Parts: sequence; C-alpha cells; structure tokens
Amino acid sequence: MFDLKLYIEQKRLQINAALEKIFQRLPANETLIEAMQYSLTAGGKRIRPVLCLGAAEAVGGKPEDALPAACALEMIHTYSLIHDDLPAMDNDSLRRGKPTCHIAFNEATAILAGDALLTLAFEVLSAAAAEHDEFALKWLKVIQIISMAAGCRGMIQGQMLDMAAEGGKLSVAELESMHALKTGALIEASLHCGALIADAGPRETHMLKNFARDIGLAFQVTDDILNVEGNPKLMGKATGTDSRHEKSTYPALLGLDASKKLARQLVRNALQVLENFDKKAEPLRALATYIIERKR
Amino acid sequence: MFDLKLYIEQKRLQINAALEKIFQRLPANETLIEAMQYSLTAGGKRIRPVLCLGAAEAVGGKPEDALPAACALEMIHTYSLIHDDLPAMDNDSLRRGKPTCHIAFNEATAILAGDALLTLAFEVLSAAAAEHDEFALKWLKVIQIISMAAGCRGMIQGQMLDMAAEGGKLSVAELESMHALKTGALIEASLHCGALIADAGPRETHMLKNFARDIGLAFQVTDDILNVEGNPKLMGKATGTDSRHEKSTYPALLGLDASKKLARQLVRNALQVLENFDKKAEPLRALATYIIERKR
Repeated sequence: MFDLKLYIEQKRLQINAALEKIFQRLPANETLIEAMQYSLTAGGKRIRPVLCLGAAEAVGGKPEDALPAACALEMIHTYSLIHDDLPAMDNDSLRRGKPTCHIAFNEATAILAGDALLTLAFEVLSAAAAEHDEFALKWLKVIQIISMAAGCRGMIQGQMLDMAAEGGKLSVAELESMHALKTGALIEASLHCGALIADAGPRETHMLKNFARDIGLAFQVTDDILNVEGNPKLMGKATGTDSRHEKSTYPALLGLDASKKLARQLVRNALQVLENFDKKAEPLRALATYIIERKR
Repeated sequence: MFDLKLYIEQKRLQINAALEKIFQRLPANETLIEAMQYSLTAGGKRIRPVLCLGAAEAVGGKPEDALPAACALEMIHTYSLIHDDLPAMDNDSLRRGKPTCHIAFNEATAILAGDALLTLAFEVLSAAAAEHDEFALKWLKVIQIISMAAGCRGMIQGQMLDMAAEGGKLSVAELESMHALKTGALIEASLHCGALIADAGPRETHMLKNFARDIGLAFQVTDDILNVEGNPKLMGKATGTDSRHEKSTYPALLGLDASKKLARQLVRNALQVLENFDKKAEPLRALATYIIERKR
C-alpha cells in the first residue's frame, strides 16, 4: 500500500532543502530576510508544493524538475498568509501555534516580508531556466499561470470577497466562488504547473486541473469543519472563531453532517477524474484523501 | 534642439495607453481593480518607464518593444508607493495632490491593491513573449532583473533601511547605500531592461547601468532638495516634512548648496558616460538634466 506519510515527509524535506538553498544565497542577519524565513518555516503543511511535485510525477515527469515552481508556490502562499493576518485584515496573532509575522516582528516588517516573498517567488521562477535555454518558454508559462492565479482575478480577489463578506451572509454558490478564488486558484495553479513542467498533454492537464478544483474546495470545506470540531492543540490555532465572527462557512450554511458529506463527495469526484491515470498518480490519490482526513 | 517636454509627453501617452489596455482586460467595477487603477493613474511622472524606453532607443532598438517592461516597472513603482504610504510605514495621507490609496479606499484594500499591482507586473512580463517564442529567454531575463531589483536585496531592503534610519542619523555613505537600494535599484533595472530588450551589447549595457546609478542618486538628492525649497502646490504634497521628522537627507547632512552641487556633479558624470552614444541617446541626456531641474 502507498505510504502517504512517508511520501509527504520526503517531499517536505526536498522542498524545505530547496527553500533553504534559496535563502543561503540571501544576506544573513537582516531583519527582512529573517521575517521572510520565520513565516516560511513556521510549520506549513506544504500542500501546494507537494501537489505540484505530485502532478509532475503523475504524468511521468521528474518531480525535482518542478522544485522551483514548488518553492515559488509556497512563498506566495506564505506571503498571502502574512498579509491576511495583518491588523487591517484578519488581525490574527497566532498561526500554526506561533505568533504571526507582524506580532513576532512588527507591522511594517510583515508587510515588506510579504512583498519580498512574493517578489522572490518570481525571481526563483525566472532563474529556473537559466542553465537550460530550451526551457525558457515553459518557465515563462509557469510564471504566467502563477501570476494569474495569485493576482487580481485569483487569490487576491478572493481575499477581497472574503473581507467584503464579513458580517453579511453568503449563499453556498457565493461561498464557493469566493473559495475558488481565495484558495482554489493557487491549488489549481500548483497542479497545472507541475503538469506543464513534466510536459503533460492537454488532456492530462485538463484532468489534473479538474482534480485540483475538487480537492481545492474539499480542502476549504474541511478547514471550515476543523474550525468547528478540530483540536486547537493539533491545529496550532483557536477553533470556533468562524462562528464567533458569524462567518459564512459550509457548516454554518449546510450543517456539519452535510458539510462532511460534501467534502467526501468532492474527493470522490477528484478520485474519479484520476481513474485514467496509472499508479504514478498514487500520491495524488492519497493526497486527495488526506485533505479531508487531516486533523490540522 | 531636442524637445524633451514633447518627448516625455509622447512617451507618457504611449505608456498610459499600454497600461489602459492591460486594465481593459480586467473586470470592471471591482473595488480591487479600481484601487489599483486609482494609484496607477494618480499623476505619476512615469520616470522609470520613460527611462526604460529611452534606453531601448539609445541602443538602436524600437522603444515599443520595451512597453511591457515599462508598464511592469511603473506598476511595481506604484505598488511600492501604496505600501510605503500605509499607516504602519510612512503614514502619508496625500500623494501627488490626491488622497493616498488607503485614505481613498481603506487599509486592507490598499495592501491588496499593492500586492495585486506587483503580481500583475509579472503577469504582464510573462505574457510579453507569448506570440514570439524566440524572445522567451529575453523576457525571462527581464523578469529576473526586475524581481532582483524590486526584492529583498533591492527596493524592499531599501525601504527597511529607510524605516530603520528614522530618528537616528545616517552618514552620507549610509544615506547613499539606502537610496541605491530604495530608488536606485529599480531605476537601474529600468535602463538595464530597456537595453536588454533592444539587444544592447555588454559594453553599452554596462554604460547604461552606470548612467542609471548616477541619475538615480541625482534624482534622490533632488527629491531631498525639493522637500526643503520646492513649491507644495506644484509638488502636490507638503514640503519641509523631512526636517520636521528629523530625517537624514542630503541637505541636512551636506547643506543645501553642497547638495545642489552634488546633484549637478552626478548629472555631469551621467552625461559623460553617454559620450560614446550617438544622437539616439538624446532623450536620455535630456532626462538626466530634467531630473535635477524638475519642480516636482
């Protein structure tokens, strides 16, 4: 049987080593760099980079080839968390059991560390083809996919919608489109880029993007469920916060049971999409299941 | 004689039209996009994009080819102003005679509009070679140059140093290195990218980068001088603020006369670097002079 725990552990080590290598080339003992590293190494699950590598593997590519994209995706995810946590936005002081960036440093440093992680992501992507001219166009496309997913028609617009929704009540359809932008777009880009780097065909790519949309939403539904009945110790943050802030969530709109059913259904859909893939897609299949079974 | 005013006016129209075209492809009536456009069209001098086009022209290229880079540079410059103006940073409520982004919208929207402009810059750069595969490597290099200049070893680190210096007193050397990062790096990248896109040779590129360093610093010295004796009406912002905040500036450290002399000397150095260029470098020469003679 496929050992997902071992797989994720190995991929995490690989991703963390690649991130560390990037930071070794940056000046040490500078507050800005320290703040960037602080948030980047604060215990993230590395879901997006693992999905990116898994997608490359699923279509027969070498996951290592996708490492620059994996690192860039994690940097962009981390920057978005730093900025979302700011007092002007969600005003969170704890993330993954540690003080958020603006608490550990200060607000100005947190804003700039986020900016710098976003910028560094594109630097890493632009350097990926430096020694292989023939891959330049491929990496340019990766930059386009990621910038579109992370920008004003993707992740950032999702955060705008999330903030606009505060206090009001969203419909299930509105909640879904908000999440499709806020978290779904970057998850979809993760698999898309992995597939692209591994030279996937248009049909495979299309299926992996469908897979991504299903697990992206399942991921968010599960997040909402964990906020209701998760263990704050395992999660490294308080639970029950969504209902206290009267946030529109799946459990609030559908109830807890129907939310769990929805998450399971989404993962079933995702697994069905992968039926045409061989055993090289085993990591992606296991990741899909992990996404709704995780405890944090 | 070369008519700089007309030249700048024409280039600005070209750049503004290119920016508008980019925004026409984005959804209308969305607050995020409106905030991005608000700051992008708030009357900036377009110095960086004009320098970028001017560099392409100076080495015999078509300035239009550099338009995507010019737009990206202006977006990055604008995002940096939006974030610098935030309450957690310089806390400025007026810029170019208009309310700053977080005053006109709100703080969260300003943070996200900045993030989105930065991200859009890379999207525009990644799309520049879309119809010309053979230029992919060139644009990948442009992305690398700009991301390095704008990131944690360039502009953002400059802003960190600027904030760290508040209250304390910098030496002239420290002031110079701070400005070399905060404004110099992106100005240098502007000329470097223009040269690269126009297929400049290594010697021409080297000279244009030297030119950039001189005028970049001259630009900053002039900014400091204008803060002392500029006309607030022409500048669209209050003057005298540096001395009230006891900021380290060239006039504060060297006196007003020596600062003016320094600015003139830097421009003379810059013009000397261009002596090997023919009349196609006339716009750059005129821009160097404009930088210290400007009233805003």
